[in-house]
Amino acid sequence: MKAKYKVIPGGITAAKGFRAAGVHCGIKPAGKTEKDTPLDLALIVSMMPAHAAAVFTSNLVKAAPVRVSQKHIAKGRAQAIVANSGNANACTGEKGMKDALDMARLTAELLAVAPHEVLVASTGRIGVNLPMENVLSGIRAAEQILSDEGGAAAARAIMTTDKNAKEIAVTLKINDREVRIGAIAKGAGMINPSLATMFCFITTDATVSTNCLDKALRAAADQSFNRISVDNDTSTNDTVIILANGMAGNIPLTLEHPDYPKFQEALNFVMLKMAQAIVRDGECVTKFINVEITGAASDADARLAAKAVANSMLAKCAWCGGDPNWGRVLCAVGYSGAQVDPDKLDLYYDKLHAVAGGAPTGLPARRMKKVLTQPEFTVRVDLNLGEGKFTAYTTDLTEAYVEFNKGE
Amino acid sequence: MKAKYKVIPGGITAAKGFRAAGVHCGIKPAGKTEKDTPLDLALIVSMMPAHAAAVFTSNLVKAAPVRVSQKHIAKGRAQAIVANSGNANACTGEKGMKDALDMARLTAELLAVAPHEVLVASTGRIGVNLPMENVLSGIRAAEQILSDEGGAAAARAIMTTDKNAKEIAVTLKINDREVRIGAIAKGAGMINPSLATMFCFITTDATVSTNCLDKALRAAADQSFNRISVDNDTSTNDTVIILANGMAGNIPLTLEHPDYPKFQEALNFVMLKMAQAIVRDGECVTKFINVEITGAASDADARLAAKAVANSMLAKCAWCGGDPNWGRVLCAVGYSGAQVDPDKLDLYYDKLHAVAGGAPTGLPARRMKKVLTQPEFTVRVDLNLGEGKFTAYTTDLTEAYVEFNKGE
Repeated sequence: MKAKYKVIPGGITAAKGFRAAGVHCGIKPAGKTEKDTPLDLALIVSMMPAHAAAVFTSNLVKAAPVRVSQKHIAKGRAQAIVANSGNANACTGEKGMKDALDMARLTAELLAVAPHEVLVASTGRIGVNLPMENVLSGIRAAEQILSDEGGAAAARAIMTTDKNAKEIAVTLKINDREVRIGAIAKGAGMINPSLATMFCFITTDATVSTNCLDKALRAAADQSFNRISVDNDTSTNDTVIILANGMAGNIPLTLEHPDYPKFQEALNFVMLKMAQAIVRDGECVTKFINVEITGAASDADARLAAKAVANSMLAKCAWCGGDPNWGRVLCAVGYSGAQVDPDKLDLYYDKLHAVAGGAPTGLPARRMKKVLTQPEFTVRVDLNLGEGKFTAYTTDLTEAYVEFNKGE
Repeated sequence: MKAKYKVIPGGITAAKGFRAAGVHCGIKPAGKTEKDTPLDLALIVSMMPAHAAAVFTSNLVKAAPVRVSQKHIAKGRAQAIVANSGNANACTGEKGMKDALDMARLTAELLAVAPHEVLVASTGRIGVNLPMENVLSGIRAAEQILSDEGGAAAARAIMTTDKNAKEIAVTLKINDREVRIGAIAKGAGMINPSLATMFCFITTDATVSTNCLDKALRAAADQSFNRISVDNDTSTNDTVIILANGMAGNIPLTLEHPDYPKFQEALNFVMLKMAQAIVRDGECVTKFINVEITGAASDADARLAAKAVANSMLAKCAWCGGDPNWGRVLCAVGYSGAQVDPDKLDLYYDKLHAVAGGAPTGLPARRMKKVLTQPEFTVRVDLNLGEGKFTAYTTDLTEAYVEFNKGE
C-alpha cells in the first residue's frame, strides 16, 4: 500500500504560518564558546489563531506550567507555545505558578494575543524556582528572531539529556489541497537525572475542527507515546500539544470528512516517529526492543502484558547482555494481570520460536543470542487465547543508566 | 512495652518434633572440596502430622512445584517439605509436573506418609528440566541424616544468589506452655539472574486450628513479604509455608483464644525479620530503605504510594548515589494511583524536613546527603489527607545489579 503522506524537511515550521525560535537565556550554564552553549528557551508561534488540543501527564503531581496550560487550552484555542529546558518548574509552590503565568503573559504581550492563547511547558530539574529575569529576557530575544526556519533551533532548545534533536514533517493532500504536519519532541527518560519529561509539539496548517483535532491527537498518542517506556517513571511535566491554524485552506476536517482517516494516519506516523525517537535516545540505552503481545483475550489484556514485559527490570538487564533468558519474559506476562494460561504460551525472538505451549522448543542458546545482540529486535509472546494484541516499545537497562542517574 | 516472645537459636528445627537436613545432590555443580560444594536439597519433617497453611506467588505462570503444593495443601495438613535450589522447575511442561509429583511421592514413601502430606518447592533456573536421578538420590540421602539440629543445613540448601543463610526462632508462652516458632528463608531478588524466587518455611510446635493458622499466616505475610521489593519482578515460584504440629501441648489456638494476638505478634516478628533479611541480602544492593507513607486517604492508597516509590527505578538510582533527589519520590507518589494533593505533600529523610506543602524547605543538600549515604534510612511522605499509612522495605539499584543480571 502506498503511503498517503510524504516526509518533508522543516519540522515544526514546515506547516504554513508557523514561526519558531530557540535561544540561550541562562537557565542552563553557558559553554566556553557560542557553539558549546546550549539553547534553553523555545518559542513556537502561529500567525493566525489556531485550534489546539493537548494531552498532559497523568501524574497528580503536575508542574506549574502543566496546570497553567491545562487551563489555557480549555477553550480549544492557542496561538503560541513557550517552552524552556533546564528547569521543570515542578514542586515550586505559589511562586512556580506565578512564574508559569508570567511566561505566558509576557509572550502574549509581545505577540499581541491574550495570555490564555499561550501554552507553557518546562522541563528540567524539579524543586527549584526558575531564574525569571533570564527567562523573561529569553522570551524577548526569541520573539525578535522568530522565523519560518526556526524549527531546528526550537527542537534543540527543548533538549535536556537528549543526545539528538528530534523533528519530522510530512505533507499530504486533503481535498486536493497540500497540507503539512510538523513536530518536534524531546525526552530520553520518562524522567531524567534530576531533569524531567517528554514533550512533543505538533503544528499543522490543515483546517481541523477542535473536536476532531482533540480526537485525532488522543488516538495518535495512544498508539505512540502511550506505548513507550524507558524507565517506567511518569514525569510531572509530560506535554503533547497540537496547533492547527487552517492556513492550508482545506475544507474543514470533521470526523465525517472522507479524508479524516488520511489525516489521522499521517498524524499517527508523525507521533509514532517522535515517540520511537525518544526510546532510541533513551538514557544510556544500547537496544530498541519491540514487545509484541498477540492472542490475548482482549487488547486491554495485551496492553497489560506488553507493559509488564517492557518494564521488567530483569528482562531489561537480560536484553542488555543479549541473554536469551525468556523465563523472565514469561514471568512478567504471568504477573501482568492479563488472563494467561501458562501451558499455552508461545514466545518468539524475531522469527525464532523459543517457547511452545509454555515449555522450551530446545532452540540452541547461540541462535537466540544472535537475535538478542542486535541493536533492535522483537520479542513476541502469543497467549493463544483470543484476538487481542498490543506492541510496546522499550529499551534495555544498562550499568551506565544507573551511573548516569545516581547523582553527583 | 516488653516483647511477648524471645529470640532463641535453632531456626526451623527449634520447635519440638521437627527435624531437617540439607545435602548436595548435584543440581548445582560441586566445588573442588566438600567445603566449597553448595547444598541444593532440603528436607523438613514433622514427627507428627501437622496443620499447614501456605501462600504462593500470585504469578499466573506458576512453577510445577507450586501447582503440586497448592493441591496437596488443600486439606490444611502436611508433614514434610522437600525443596531444591539451582532449578525452578518452571515452564517445564508435563515432564515438570511429573517430576514435582515424583519428589513428593519418594519423600512420602521414605517417611511412610501420604504423598499429599508432602509439599514441594523449587528455586533456580527457569525452563530446564530437573536432573531427577540426582534429585531422588538427594531425597534419600537427606532422609538418612534428618536431625533436630539440621535447620542450619536446610537454610543453606535453599540458597541461590543469597550471600547469607536466613534463619530465626522465637519462644513464647501460650496458656503458660512454652511454644516455639522457627523459620528459614531465601531470596535475593524477586527473581535472580536466571534463578528465581523467595521461600520462607516456618515451623511451630504450637497447637493451632487450621483456620486460625491460615489467617495468622496471611496476616503476617501482609505485613512482611507483601511489603518488600528488590526489583519489582514477582517470581513464578514464591512460596511461604507454615507447619504447626501441636507438640507443645497447649490448649488449641483458635481466633477466640486470649493468646491468639500474642501468637500473631510473634509470627509477625519472625516473618518480618525473614522478609527484611531478604531485602538486606538483595542482589548487589548497598542500602536498605524504609519507604513510609502517612496521612493517606486510606491504607490502600498509602500502599499504592509506598510501592510506587519503592519500585521507582530513578528513586532507587538516586539512593544508590546518596543523591537527595526528592523530586523523583514525589513524582512516583504522583503517578501511584493514590489520591494526592500536590500542594499538601511533606517529605522527610529520617528526621529532616525536606519538602513542606509540595515545595522545598530550603534544607542544604549536604545535610540530606548525610542521611542518604547511610546504609539504612527512612523516606517518609505525609500526604496530609487522612489517617492511611503503609511502610514498604526496599533497596537501591546499583550498576553491579545490572551487570549481575545481564547474563553470560
